[in-house]
Amino acid sequence: MTPAEARVRHETYRNKIVSAQEAVQWIRPGDTVAISGFASAGTPKAVTPALAEHIRRTRATGGDFRINLLTGASVASDTERMLADVDGIALRMPYQAEPTARGRINEGRMDYVDIHLSHVAQQVWEGYYGHVDVAVVEISGITENGELIPATSIGNNKTWLDVAEKVILEVNSWIPAAMDGVHDVYYGTALPPNRRPIDLTHVEDRIGQPYFRIDPERVVAVVETDRPDSATALTAPDATSQAIAEHVLDFFAHEVAAGRLPADTLLPLQSGVGNVANAVLAGLDSGPYRGLTCYSEVIQDGMLDLVKHGTVRFASATALALSEAGLNDFVENIDFYRDHIMLRPQEISNHPEIVRRLGIIAMNGMLEADVYGNVNSTHVMGTRIMNGIGGSGDFARNGYLSMFLSPSTARGGAISSIVPMVPHVDHTEHDVQVIVTEQGLADLRALSPRRRSRVVVERCAHPDYRAELLDYIERAEAAPGAGHTPHLLGEAFSFHERYQRTGTMHAS
Amino acid sequence: MTPAEARVRHETYRNKIVSAQEAVQWIRPGDTVAISGFASAGTPKAVTPALAEHIRRTRATGGDFRINLLTGASVASDTERMLADVDGIALRMPYQAEPTARGRINEGRMDYVDIHLSHVAQQVWEGYYGHVDVAVVEISGITENGELIPATSIGNNKTWLDVAEKVILEVNSWIPAAMDGVHDVYYGTALPPNRRPIDLTHVEDRIGQPYFRIDPERVVAVVETDRPDSATALTAPDATSQAIAEHVLDFFAHEVAAGRLPADTLLPLQSGVGNVANAVLAGLDSGPYRGLTCYSEVIQDGMLDLVKHGTVRFASATALALSEAGLNDFVENIDFYRDHIMLRPQEISNHPEIVRRLGIIAMNGMLEADVYGNVNSTHVMGTRIMNGIGGSGDFARNGYLSMFLSPSTARGGAISSIVPMVPHVDHTEHDVQVIVTEQGLADLRALSPRRRSRVVVERCAHPDYRAELLDYIERAEAAPGAGHTPHLLGEAFSFHERYQRTGTMHAS
Repeated sequence: MTPAEARVRHETYRNKIVSAQEAVQWIRPGDTVAISGFASAGTPKAVTPALAEHIRRTRATGGDFRINLLTGASVASDTERMLADVDGIALRMPYQAEPTARGRINEGRMDYVDIHLSHVAQQVWEGYYGHVDVAVVEISGITENGELIPATSIGNNKTWLDVAEKVILEVNSWIPAAMDGVHDVYYGTALPPNRRPIDLTHVEDRIGQPYFRIDPERVVAVVETDRPDSATALTAPDATSQAIAEHVLDFFAHEVAAGRLPADTLLPLQSGVGNVANAVLAGLDSGPYRGLTCYSEVIQDGMLDLVKHGTVRFASATALALSEAGLNDFVENIDFYRDHIMLRPQEISNHPEIVRRLGIIAMNGMLEADVYGNVNSTHVMGTRIMNGIGGSGDFARNGYLSMFLSPSTARGGAISSIVPMVPHVDHTEHDVQVIVTEQGLADLRALSPRRRSRVVVERCAHPDYRAELLDYIERAEAAPGAGHTPHLLGEAFSFHERYQRTGTMHAS
Repeated sequence: MTPAEARVRHETYRNKIVSAQEAVQWIRPGDTVAISGFASAGTPKAVTPALAEHIRRTRATGGDFRINLLTGASVASDTERMLADVDGIALRMPYQAEPTARGRINEGRMDYVDIHLSHVAQQVWEGYYGHVDVAVVEISGITENGELIPATSIGNNKTWLDVAEKVILEVNSWIPAAMDGVHDVYYGTALPPNRRPIDLTHVEDRIGQPYFRIDPERVVAVVETDRPDSATALTAPDATSQAIAEHVLDFFAHEVAAGRLPADTLLPLQSGVGNVANAVLAGLDSGPYRGLTCYSEVIQDGMLDLVKHGTVRFASATALALSEAGLNDFVENIDFYRDHIMLRPQEISNHPEIVRRLGIIAMNGMLEADVYGNVNSTHVMGTRIMNGIGGSGDFARNGYLSMFLSPSTARGGAISSIVPMVPHVDHTEHDVQVIVTEQGLADLRALSPRRRSRVVVERCAHPDYRAELLDYIERAEAAPGAGHTPHLLGEAFSFHERYQRTGTMHAS
């Protein structure tokens, strides 16, 4: 008995164990294929490479073979790249973070639909993406009762298992068996008019069950794997990230002093991934806080430290993207962590109802903000997509405090993150309350646009760009009929056009 | 005993009856004043004019006098104008629709903060707008127990009564006493971390109480009035509005046929006010629907017909903006209407949790949309504010279907409502699913930007502008490194710049 077979504790499923090469025969050209995976955690590791190879061979014999690929969020880079390399993806939804796929999207050779992560499940249930032919879902095991034990991410897996005509399961014995019990799979969602209140009032509330359920008739193949997630280890925060984090921490202290945030615990924190988010977490760990909570999408190594120290009492997410060291720590101390960490479907981790109720402090990265507080999270120079909006809009729009964080410049100073007007808006002025760079923090709450512009430039813009930004604002305000939100339409993108022309936003 | 006194059925309050001139003495320069009023329904009719006069006289003697004015949404135009005429407003929040005030805002002489209507209460509770010094709230009466019977709108009145240091009540005996019982005032909201699920699962659910409660100590004055709301009568739908409505109705039929909407009842409808919304309602009334529901902000005359005919089973809103004829009908048949119409606080009528749960079909007007589906609802030519975002974002962001409706041109054809890029974004591409003009309906669901642009132009743009829009799209796609969302930044606002230069978006 292989390690994977030991995890398939139900005979019906043991009889369906096949190789990945056999399993992909169930996937046909033109299929809509929904796979597991969120931020590189829980991507199927055997079937997707086999599918890419299957597509390559079909192509080599003159056949066409492209699928529509639905996921939780980003998936493991090598997987996305393999499928993009063989031009195997016709349509991609909802989020991607891999250069080859991104290149095809930006060349107009792959359709990409960039939607809020909280909208994916309901839109697929409604059939906006047509029939889901095949789901490929990584799990960590199958119980004696035929229930499926989730892997290191949940994402949209509950939905994929519910809606797909055919299901291929990857049972990955690399996933520590001890993770059993970390998951909370909610089966109470419905389409309107049959929706009910979701009874989650604290981040640690368990409202579902630990396992997925599935009709075994729809499972066409079970594939064994034993391969690790490709989570990246964290890098130590740099000076810029630390400066941003310090501004955030000062702001929290200010809000606590003003009586707008609870002193020890603040409110549930959501933060994106990456250097800045990690610096904020590290800063919180050395601050005055005890018993914080997090209600977010991804748990990385840094969070384990905060949980161990008691800085964070409970962290809810939809994916566990740990390094090898982090995972070892997690498994060794699983009985402790199981009381402090929970994974949920992304429709719950990002749900408008819950985000509003919990009063989440949303901290997300951005590409750029304009002087009036509109944020571009997705499109470089307004046209070339980076990764997608992900969950940032779910948290920013319905959360309690909506903060966007970024270094004030990129590309060695050639790009200013503060511009006269953003050429793509993902978060409107109505949904952005605080902007932070290493230069400072702009609190835009209760300010009219003309007041916001001064605050954004003076607090957040890099000194190299401040004079030109202020000049733009002043000339826009002086123009005839300047209006509530003064702009000079002929110059609004002057920073971007200069960059396109000269390779820098700096005036010569 | 005056008619108003007959409505003040509690001695404590009868002893506080004063004139409006006396009442406004409680309002001081620099105060933050929160008044009732939503879409012209329920604006205080005596105290606000007296306040304007009080400010004028103070000014005439050399004193300065400006207040910060918080409301539900727009208030009666004459009221807003009187206060703007005397330059009495320093800061205005959250929505306005009156030319004099709008002019001051666009000249940069009045601060205006344009926020989602569902955010107002929580932001005021949190103190983002500082201390609320005085609330002026119109009611229809005071019960023997000292409870306050709401007027024709609720808006933020519950919040104003809770948070204001001093309260001035206007008891308006013009409001039919029979309206008692139409209101549902929810007292279950809280600031995080103390929020609980809101137990509303059907539009008709009663979750609160019919009256406001208040500590009588804080009521400094009671003023009698007997003046009507200034609701505007509806005009008959024109051909353009009817064409838009027909496209909407065809779309509903298509969605029903696809199994995505319940056949008889669809899902709860939200629609803005105005000609297009009325045409849609009229179209629904002659369609196959029975037992529809509405969960919206404002009920106008047209809705009464649908309720009478059984087309609409129940309509929930926060304001009742009826014509005199409509109000007479409402009062004469109050026992019938009370079973079919309910008014709620705007934090409930627009609440993200409820909007998502009910699965609302959101139909809102717009100024313009761009070819990729970003919508500008607020800023003419990107700079001059019209009215504000109002509740459109509350419904579009969290609703089930997000539709934006507009004639394809304005100003006799000189302005195209479909443009290469909108110079102000209130609803991003992620939150806009359907765009409708009299030309047709663009269903953007599940489409990548390059596919959306063709659909928007071919379905929605006026024929006079189609060729130029297509030319823009094609050249943007052909540009080097065109990207996911092709744009030519130097030309993105060419329509708007031409309009500013020549008075028309038409190429000569």
